[in-house]
Amino acid sequence: MSDALSRDTLALLKDKATMMRIHSVRSTNAAGSGHPTTCASSAEIMSALFFSAMRYDPKNPADRANDNFILSKGHAAPVLYAAWCEAGLIPEADLLNLRKIDSDLEGHPPTTLPFVDVATGSLGQGLSVGLGMALAARLDGTPQRTYVLMGDGEIAEGSVWEAIQAAAEEGVDSLCATVDVNRLGQSSPTMLEHDMDTHKARWEAFGWHAIVVDGHDVEALVAAYAEAASTKGKPSVVLAKTFKGKGLPGEDENGYHGKPVASDQVEEVLKTLEGQLLKTGGEWVPNLPSANGVAAAAGAPSAGPPPYALGDLVATRRAFGQALGALAKADSRIVAVDADVKNSTFTQDLEDVDSSRFFQGFIAEQNMVGTAMGLACRGKIPFASTFACFLTRAYDFVRMAAISQTNIKLVGTHAGISIGEDGPSQMGLEDLAMTSVEPNYTVLYPSEAVSAWRAIEAVAAIDGPCYVRTSRPNTPVIYGPDEEFGPGIAKVVKQSDADQVTVVGAGVTLFEALKAYDELAKEGIAIRVIDLFSIRPVDKDTLVVAAKATNGKVVTVEDHYPVGGVGDAVLSALAEEGNVKVRKLAVCEIARSGPSAVLLEKYGISASHVVAAVKDML
Amino acid sequence: MSDALSRDTLALLKDKATMMRIHSVRSTNAAGSGHPTTCASSAEIMSALFFSAMRYDPKNPADRANDNFILSKGHAAPVLYAAWCEAGLIPEADLLNLRKIDSDLEGHPPTTLPFVDVATGSLGQGLSVGLGMALAARLDGTPQRTYVLMGDGEIAEGSVWEAIQAAAEEGVDSLCATVDVNRLGQSSPTMLEHDMDTHKARWEAFGWHAIVVDGHDVEALVAAYAEAASTKGKPSVVLAKTFKGKGLPGEDENGYHGKPVASDQVEEVLKTLEGQLLKTGGEWVPNLPSANGVAAAAGAPSAGPPPYALGDLVATRRAFGQALGALAKADSRIVAVDADVKNSTFTQDLEDVDSSRFFQGFIAEQNMVGTAMGLACRGKIPFASTFACFLTRAYDFVRMAAISQTNIKLVGTHAGISIGEDGPSQMGLEDLAMTSVEPNYTVLYPSEAVSAWRAIEAVAAIDGPCYVRTSRPNTPVIYGPDEEFGPGIAKVVKQSDADQVTVVGAGVTLFEALKAYDELAKEGIAIRVIDLFSIRPVDKDTLVVAAKATNGKVVTVEDHYPVGGVGDAVLSALAEEGNVKVRKLAVCEIARSGPSAVLLEKYGISASHVVAAVKDML
Repeated sequence: MSDALSRDTLALLKDKATMMRIHSVRSTNAAGSGHPTTCASSAEIMSALFFSAMRYDPKNPADRANDNFILSKGHAAPVLYAAWCEAGLIPEADLLNLRKIDSDLEGHPPTTLPFVDVATGSLGQGLSVGLGMALAARLDGTPQRTYVLMGDGEIAEGSVWEAIQAAAEEGVDSLCATVDVNRLGQSSPTMLEHDMDTHKARWEAFGWHAIVVDGHDVEALVAAYAEAASTKGKPSVVLAKTFKGKGLPGEDENGYHGKPVASDQVEEVLKTLEGQLLKTGGEWVPNLPSANGVAAAAGAPSAGPPPYALGDLVATRRAFGQALGALAKADSRIVAVDADVKNSTFTQDLEDVDSSRFFQGFIAEQNMVGTAMGLACRGKIPFASTFACFLTRAYDFVRMAAISQTNIKLVGTHAGISIGEDGPSQMGLEDLAMTSVEPNYTVLYPSEAVSAWRAIEAVAAIDGPCYVRTSRPNTPVIYGPDEEFGPGIAKVVKQSDADQVTVVGAGVTLFEALKAYDELAKEGIAIRVIDLFSIRPVDKDTLVVAAKATNGKVVTVEDHYPVGGVGDAVLSALAEEGNVKVRKLAVCEIARSGPSAVLLEKYGISASHVVAAVKDML
Repeated sequence: MSDALSRDTLALLKDKATMMRIHSVRSTNAAGSGHPTTCASSAEIMSALFFSAMRYDPKNPADRANDNFILSKGHAAPVLYAAWCEAGLIPEADLLNLRKIDSDLEGHPPTTLPFVDVATGSLGQGLSVGLGMALAARLDGTPQRTYVLMGDGEIAEGSVWEAIQAAAEEGVDSLCATVDVNRLGQSSPTMLEHDMDTHKARWEAFGWHAIVVDGHDVEALVAAYAEAASTKGKPSVVLAKTFKGKGLPGEDENGYHGKPVASDQVEEVLKTLEGQLLKTGGEWVPNLPSANGVAAAAGAPSAGPPPYALGDLVATRRAFGQALGALAKADSRIVAVDADVKNSTFTQDLEDVDSSRFFQGFIAEQNMVGTAMGLACRGKIPFASTFACFLTRAYDFVRMAAISQTNIKLVGTHAGISIGEDGPSQMGLEDLAMTSVEPNYTVLYPSEAVSAWRAIEAVAAIDGPCYVRTSRPNTPVIYGPDEEFGPGIAKVVKQSDADQVTVVGAGVTLFEALKAYDELAKEGIAIRVIDLFSIRPVDKDTLVVAAKATNGKVVTVEDHYPVGGVGDAVLSALAEEGNVKVRKLAVCEIARSGPSAVLLEKYGISASHVVAAVKDML
């Protein structure tokens, strides 16, 4: 591979690049939108990767033994589709369906395509995902390499530097990035333009093996990928100096981003490109992977019975760590990615079981979630966790994981004002909103250790993105070990035929509701108390029955802001019932430092406020 | 300054460091929680900054002429309070109120303190804010310098590298970062530990002047800050090699993060520290700023009358750019920060007015918002904008801006599925939830150009964080130039005494509601149509009146996921009314590429779905 390419191979690679340029022009022209100029800059890179460097079976693009490829610069989707056309998977005529309502060849790569592991289009995510895939391969002992193609505008995203530092720290030499340095962003030149020395210095300072090449020279690119493959102990990056719109009108000029070739120019452009075809390269022979990939394991992981007795005081975050450790013992697919809080989230319990399945991502939440996404793409069941508030840092990854339907498990600890003295910067008060708004997330919010244990077990068994919210304070165990918990199941904790108001709590506020129950009982007022547990999907049936039984009077109480949490989930479930009044108790202002119980009182979500709200509704 | 310090000055600086260590131990011990070890590592840094390098008036900590200081490693709050105690502002006895419910000395620095510009505690945000402050000083032509103190664990955050590259790109030499390289994170050693060469290489590769010093040598630190101050054309960083817990039990050992000194050890520790006091330094003389700061301008900026006529087809994002340009012409406080999408968001209209007030942040949304926060701290009215979906990237900054009550103006363009062919990665469908959940954000969602113009003008006049959601497609102007718009004002667009159902839309769906109005009118069914406009605060009065007038029957329709948007805002407003049924039409699954109108139909938010929902409710 390191020797000079044969004349035929060189011709073939050049022609593949030209054909990808042609396909990109044609498809975006047919669509009337899209990004041909960013495809044109990467045509030779794609050729060197898809028709020389990468080992994969073009007939089985989802084969786990294939090398991994992520088009992080997702707006270059047409060149990806063109590559798979040239590899024989996509019929040429299909390329003209780009961006149409009934074609999977969407504007940015969707996971409905068998060769797309994660949807891209939000820049700066691919390298984290690639790192996760490479770590999965290392765990599995499989030889595949992982290639990630990025743009130079894209690497301004800080998340990319999180991935860069983490990959170097892991020393994962099967990971190979490429930066298509085409000098131009959407609206202006990039910061470094074609300053390849500075590009190289940055990656090297971050511990990578960096190779600068002419990105339109397929021979140089092939040599660079061979050099990367033979580099041990560190990841490699190919910094490819290219020209945006290479071979198209507006080459290397600003102002051509996201613009198809004008209709009156397209024929001439295509004619010129076709004239560049050498046609002496013969047929491409796929470089098949040598081994079979590790097949996906199946079945729901079991954590076993929760080791708690009624009345035990255990924080739900503590139960999370313990359940995670138990799951990891039982199932090798369970892995964890941390952000330097393993001793607060208790993911160290998994590290104790098997440190090879514990990844320390340091204080870099975007890369934590992105790495988890990559691990999930290769059959792992990854838990990524930190304080609930700091998951906001990774929201764009959370969002893209929804679009990709990626099987990640997010756990937020230290939710709400109940954390106390650390103050508002450490209080997650919008995490239920940010996760439950995503249409395919399962969102669970256990109140005590048994339900927390079962929540963690439940999300491990679900195929799709999940979020579990846990709390800092100890709460008493109120459920027996055989109590059933799962998505869409709320628990009626207190009920009688005399119930006058339904009170719905979750997490720490369930216990405020229970205190209110006792207070009100002394005055002869019965309330129904519900532990909502599942925020999404919500247990509509239980809520409707309870609301009807209490004459439509409902109080919700939550350690969260009033939007998108417990109260809104209940309101939505009852929205079309009519004859229902819902009073939401929630944290309605920016909170402050102080003792947990004092804060619950101050911000209106303690038992006394529940008592007052119930009385007011009578 | 570059000469050797006098013996007295050196003694004074050493004693200030020791006193800050003492205060940090005492206050965290009194609180029973907090982070004395991270205070101890930075004591000499704080001494060199507060008692030598920085020019400020300790009696007037909020004076705009003072040098700026941001404690980005916010968990070292006790050392910040100790510094202001040693500077004479905070009485020593007050330090013992750390983290108490009635003290402003919270666990992490809050903006209720006059010397805190932005709340910190979520790591990795301070440098972006500092960059914004430094850019404001440059705009104002004031000489103050901006100092940002970070931890070495913290700089794993990608946002830090976004700020690093942006500051170098701006060549802003009044910005000086310090990294307290104490080698230890919360749960484990940092990636680079004490590898100061690699630290230096990284900053230098990113274009900074980097100075490595012994972070416990005040003389070396003072010299480093002098070197930084005399470095022109680029920002400087002082990389201070320190030991976590310096002078305390567990110095340089893992496992002491966030732990006060044990009660049975504290007396001995304090005695030892007190024994280190030299007491030969005399009184500290403040280094007062030479000039007065630029006073904050006052009054609401005016954009003038919107230049649109009824029926004009104008995208709300286009109107945003035009209003921004008009505001910028009228008021020099108006500035913009971009993320390489100025030609899509039309913030280039402001650049055309005054390019010095337009900051190109490239594709780095966290730093974009953080820079805006810094600009706001110095009296600017900053607009930070990108596609609505990409603001998710900056959610932790959005959250912290809420906690700080920072006067930033966020604008999301290309909201919802109505963007069409670019597909789901580019569709903001959770932006209303992520902003309106924050308790002090104003959230506006105009449907057409006049209301968009007024929305932009309105948020510029509000003192606090705001979000405006705009759309990609052209929509017809339906309001006259004198129509009044503002927070909390919904518009009843269609009404009659015969109305049977209230339909609430916003943005592109308002026009689907209006089409439905026409369709239903043909069948003799009258509906009331409301343009919600203000998501937070919501116009409860108008909604209650409409709901009552239409027998409690309400349909909401929105180009957003069903959680936290138009429907939930309406539901919440009507939650306690009783006798109301609300049907929410929203995007309930992951969307895909396709023509805008086809997508509205496919995902259930087009006129035909409104018609069906209305009929179903009759």
